[in-house]
Amino acid sequence: MHTVIRKATRADLPQILAFIRALADYEHLSHAVQLSEADLERGGFGPRPFFECLIAEFEGRPAGYALYFFNYSTFRGQPGIYLEDLFVLPELRGQGIGKALLRRVASEAVQNHCGRFEWSVLDWNQPAIDFYHSQGGQLMDEWRIVRVEGEALTRLAAASGEESQ
Amino acid sequence: MHTVIRKATRADLPQILAFIRALADYEHLSHAVQLSEADLERGGFGPRPFFECLIAEFEGRPAGYALYFFNYSTFRGQPGIYLEDLFVLPELRGQGIGKALLRRVASEAVQNHCGRFEWSVLDWNQPAIDFYHSQGGQLMDEWRIVRVEGEALTRLAAASGEESQ
Repeated sequence: MHTVIRKATRADLPQILAFIRALADYEHLSHAVQLSEADLERGGFGPRPFFECLIAEFEGRPAGYALYFFNYSTFRGQPGIYLEDLFVLPELRGQGIGKALLRRVASEAVQNHCGRFEWSVLDWNQPAIDFYHSQGGQLMDEWRIVRVEGEALTRLAAASGEESQ
Repeated sequence: MHTVIRKATRADLPQILAFIRALADYEHLSHAVQLSEADLERGGFGPRPFFECLIAEFEGRPAGYALYFFNYSTFRGQPGIYLEDLFVLPELRGQGIGKALLRRVASEAVQNHCGRFEWSVLDWNQPAIDFYHSQGGQLMDEWRIVRVEGEALTRLAAASGEESQ
């Protein structure tokens, strides 16, 4: 095949930003994309990097990306990998590029002594769920993410210190 | 009140390990706890720390802990905090210690320019869900975590390189 997967560098920032925007557009969530190239540089290539990124090239040109970070399981006593974004350009799908990215992130997990590799899926996206099952993924059916953001986060944080000390 | 919340140090490792075991015991998951003090030290205090930890002290003695790490939202272009464990000794509940820990983690999120603060809850744990709602949390109802671990992770990783390059 003609897919090469490599770690992203600072030079890829404009391409990663374009991919993130294309992913948001594909999900009809363009309005939700707030990040700039400077944000992305600070997040991934600053003194305290919050993520790592892989670029897939197909026949010599950028075809997709995988963006992930490490989490930690206290029960296992091991880190894990959480895959935040996986994207392949619509016109290049069906070539195994997404699968190659997924497997490469799994390989990063094994090389970094991770016990788990996780990501999220919408519960109504059955084709995706079927594909993930075929790749060895299991759905954590009983668990739900709770999120606090915006004003609610500011309020919750402001309450800190009222009780402590 | 008499609750003090402070960052954990290496000296707290035996206490954190005891708390993690107590949490597992409370969840009837003691058999799932595989970590040693050395694992915990490597994970939290090594050259590449995977988590941060807060200790709550009530009337001068350790009463609970919160263990969290940073994730990243590409749409926001900001890190977030994911709370892995929150635990208060059963005999010290009802004193606001858990709430104080939760608020302090929210405060860490705000101080670190995070856009989100997240954690997980079992979908049948209605008292917990009600409490989280009261604290400003929203349930991400449509999303499910997919997890690959153990043999399945090894297999997925081994398939990497077959296609790429």
